[in-house]
Amino acid sequence: MEEWIAAFEAALNAGQVEAAVSMFSAKECYWRDLVAFTWNIATMDGRSAISKMLHEQLTQVGSISIEPEGEAKVDGEGVESWFDFETATARGKGYVRLREGKCWTLFTSMTELKGFEELSGRRRQAGAEHTASKERLTWLEEREREERTIGTEIQPYCLVVGGGQGGLALGARLKMLGVPTLIVDRLPRPGDAWRQRYKSLNLHDAVWSNDLPYIPFPVHWPIYMSKDKIGDWLEMYAKVMELNIWCSTTIRSAHFDDQAKEWIVNVEREGKTVVLRPKQLVLATGLSGKPKTPALPGAESFAGVQYHSSEHRDSTALAGKNVIVLGSNNSAHDICVDLWTVDADVTMIQRSSTSVLKIPQNPPSPDLPTPRRDLLSASMPFRARESIDREECEKDQRENATFYAQLRSAGFLLDFGEDNTGVVGKYFRRASGYYLDVGGSDLIINGQIKVRSATTIKEIRQRSVLLSDGSELDADAVIYATGFEPMESWVGTLISKDCERRVGHCWGLGSNTAMDPGPWEGELRNMWKPTAQEGLWFHGGSLSQSRIYSLYLALQIKGRLENLPISVHQPAPIDRGPITSQ
Amino acid sequence: MEEWIAAFEAALNAGQVEAAVSMFSAKECYWRDLVAFTWNIATMDGRSAISKMLHEQLTQVGSISIEPEGEAKVDGEGVESWFDFETATARGKGYVRLREGKCWTLFTSMTELKGFEELSGRRRQAGAEHTASKERLTWLEEREREERTIGTEIQPYCLVVGGGQGGLALGARLKMLGVPTLIVDRLPRPGDAWRQRYKSLNLHDAVWSNDLPYIPFPVHWPIYMSKDKIGDWLEMYAKVMELNIWCSTTIRSAHFDDQAKEWIVNVEREGKTVVLRPKQLVLATGLSGKPKTPALPGAESFAGVQYHSSEHRDSTALAGKNVIVLGSNNSAHDICVDLWTVDADVTMIQRSSTSVLKIPQNPPSPDLPTPRRDLLSASMPFRARESIDREECEKDQRENATFYAQLRSAGFLLDFGEDNTGVVGKYFRRASGYYLDVGGSDLIINGQIKVRSATTIKEIRQRSVLLSDGSELDADAVIYATGFEPMESWVGTLISKDCERRVGHCWGLGSNTAMDPGPWEGELRNMWKPTAQEGLWFHGGSLSQSRIYSLYLALQIKGRLENLPISVHQPAPIDRGPITSQ
Repeated sequence: MEEWIAAFEAALNAGQVEAAVSMFSAKECYWRDLVAFTWNIATMDGRSAISKMLHEQLTQVGSISIEPEGEAKVDGEGVESWFDFETATARGKGYVRLREGKCWTLFTSMTELKGFEELSGRRRQAGAEHTASKERLTWLEEREREERTIGTEIQPYCLVVGGGQGGLALGARLKMLGVPTLIVDRLPRPGDAWRQRYKSLNLHDAVWSNDLPYIPFPVHWPIYMSKDKIGDWLEMYAKVMELNIWCSTTIRSAHFDDQAKEWIVNVEREGKTVVLRPKQLVLATGLSGKPKTPALPGAESFAGVQYHSSEHRDSTALAGKNVIVLGSNNSAHDICVDLWTVDADVTMIQRSSTSVLKIPQNPPSPDLPTPRRDLLSASMPFRARESIDREECEKDQRENATFYAQLRSAGFLLDFGEDNTGVVGKYFRRASGYYLDVGGSDLIINGQIKVRSATTIKEIRQRSVLLSDGSELDADAVIYATGFEPMESWVGTLISKDCERRVGHCWGLGSNTAMDPGPWEGELRNMWKPTAQEGLWFHGGSLSQSRIYSLYLALQIKGRLENLPISVHQPAPIDRGPITSQ
Repeated sequence: MEEWIAAFEAALNAGQVEAAVSMFSAKECYWRDLVAFTWNIATMDGRSAISKMLHEQLTQVGSISIEPEGEAKVDGEGVESWFDFETATARGKGYVRLREGKCWTLFTSMTELKGFEELSGRRRQAGAEHTASKERLTWLEEREREERTIGTEIQPYCLVVGGGQGGLALGARLKMLGVPTLIVDRLPRPGDAWRQRYKSLNLHDAVWSNDLPYIPFPVHWPIYMSKDKIGDWLEMYAKVMELNIWCSTTIRSAHFDDQAKEWIVNVEREGKTVVLRPKQLVLATGLSGKPKTPALPGAESFAGVQYHSSEHRDSTALAGKNVIVLGSNNSAHDICVDLWTVDADVTMIQRSSTSVLKIPQNPPSPDLPTPRRDLLSASMPFRARESIDREECEKDQRENATFYAQLRSAGFLLDFGEDNTGVVGKYFRRASGYYLDVGGSDLIINGQIKVRSATTIKEIRQRSVLLSDGSELDADAVIYATGFEPMESWVGTLISKDCERRVGHCWGLGSNTAMDPGPWEGELRNMWKPTAQEGLWFHGGSLSQSRIYSLYLALQIKGRLENLPISVHQPAPIDRGPITSQ
């Protein structure tokens, strides 16, 4: 391993691209880079892609030093190792996996820009000066001045739309990098996006996956947090990280001024219109666009209540009623369970098959600290992880064979993804099509939640729904768990339809499976990376993605603020266009 | 070292007290125990005290196992080592220092009670149950129910008076141990005790000394925190730790019912009187009692403003005025500096000599993690640390000889404690008599703050003050930085004068120096340990003491809640009486 690293370092420093490329496996090889070499989030797949990247980027990267970190790990198939590296402009952390002496996967990630290191740990600020001064402001005075002036006297360099975990995590990173930032959110308090969800909602990921940057969750917190607990935490986080947030604030329009190279953003805050002129605009509005409700014949004549799943708060008013839930993904299941707790008569209408994954009640806590797990997980290129996901999914199917059989017997349409990569595969490709089972499937198996599958609602009548299979169900309420517009729809709403088309689809890898058309891109489209629209960025996903990728997005923004020489490898295609397949 | 530990363990398990005692140095030896052996906070000084303790406590302690932890550390004078131990009821951590094969200092501290371990880390709760349930409450519902019922439908087992860092840290420990607890505080919001201080106040201890339990400060926080920043943190802490606090609430009276073995506490909350019946009452009201203002002849005829230092918020109204500050400790200095920033003409009246210690601007961050530093510091008995404090103090005097000479030249009366143990000695003995220099001394040296020393105010006239040295100073304002009643005065105010007398003086070691009369007790009187009043406890001190000792106080309270067999070694003297010396 040490020899490989030393030889690779030497080849790069000598500009011997072909020598470097020959150290990768001719059969299968990947180089995944987070900002350090490409100023992008990119995976180079195969020797020729790697060769192209090095030819284009090596001059900019400059002189490189690479140091193995710790002992290399030998397993049956090969050997792998952490390493630290330094380029002309940055320090980074990497991971390399060798097979038969050649590189199978190489991972490089930027940790910090030289000269712009975070003032943390041994670099932390004094906070107080131990000499008397007549001019010095107190911490409170400085903080109040910053809050008062940002967006009014001082333009934010970066405007973040959305104050959920994504916006806050990014805001925190930018704060630590000294990037003047303003976050706007339509709700009154940070955390409200969680608080306003239905009351039984808990996080599906274990607490150790969910840390935000800089302030980990307390070590006594439960494995699965309630939505109100995370809501309160986010509010605390915004305060403690001293983020500048305008709550109860809505973006009316945003337009990029190509001359001034800045955005003109019209914002409504407390009834007044404010114009902001940030250089960078980040949409951290979540994976979903606006709620999508089908226009069903007869809906206007329905005598009961009907609403989209995103409006579901509490089932109390539906106690004992006949309720139809259209949809079969996470929120459909959670709402069905919630209705069952008040003894509603619940029927789920499953239009197409769904993946189900049982969430373990007591998963073992991990051995590696969070930053290492983050990097290790990021080090595996998406293409290479497909077979791992498939193995996991097949193992799950074997271990839970009885459960899945029972679910099918109850009439539930089950699938494990087009290529058996299960829920994980679907998450990265389309972020939908699955249920993370926290108890709903058992109610389906027991018949306490009824399922009508491979059908949909054809027509709504005054007190019933007519299904496409011809049957008719009594209905006091219809809840549409029918999903959301894609996240890029926010671009159309806030900026322009033209910009939405140019930027195109967000999320998905180009796997050429349902809702993720090809060509293969190998990274999540448009996420945390330069888009076809200058100065426009997307940030979103799970808490752990928010934690991990907020760093790389923040470093890209900081680099631009500091006018570093930035040449982006594999820039986004122009006119990527909307999602078209299936 | 391993042999010593094994032999000591064997002697204890065989009940061979004299064999165990003979393993301590005949010349000088100490055993400091935090709860584990004594159910007290106690230092046994010398072989006979150790022998007495073992004779009394060994049966209760039961079978013991002791395991060295890590490598023993050899230095010039001896060898020392960490160890883990387990008794019949508890697990603990210890530290032992051997000199010439015999024990010089032994430290034992309880970490957790067996069967009552904190649900944290690998023991953390699931938080969500992955089966559907009709009865289950959400986290928010449970939390709201707890807040609604504690103190009304459900009596707190423990009532903590004071919601500063002490009360909150203890509340957090008790929460983790499942002790039903209510905290009351007279101010509107947690953290207000800090917020309402004068605006320039910063913590004098570095951030890494100040962590509260369970949620350390973020790694990017400044070394010295502003009072408003710590105020906000405390408010966040109370919320995140889910503590039950009644703010804007005052204790009117408290009386211990000897029959029912519980307190009857009259509390005024939002204009209404509420009667609480806790079994344990903790005064976490800070090291100070009420402000102490001298009754000076003529004060009523003074035409300017006069107030106690605790009421000083901001100097703006005193810009350009002649201001007399009576007193020369920390707040006197800080207020003088604050007045100087608005160009007041400031004179400090120094009645008696003061210790001064320069606070370093950029102290190096420590190598050991906080829990280890806490235990290492606690492992040194107070008597044994005197020579260490003296060495430090003498080193400081040598290194800052010029500074101290300049200060004396400016007329400032300087001392380093009666036995040259400096500020640290004074802190543990009387918690007063010093200034932690953050810039004020330079202003004294430069004459920008004037000092009149070895004098006091004899009389106040309409627009001046007359000093005992006969001189007269013009005065538009007089600020009394004249200190506070001792902390035990709260007992007289809230409970009774009789109880105050029986409980007697708090803090101080019995060093027989100014304001700390003998006899030697070797521990801070009444702090975090059983007092002469059943069910009454004191908790207070710096942030680091709050963090460290809240654990031992919480374990003592938990032991009583669970009716564990508790025999207290060295119970508090009855009728200790008030402080009498000097």
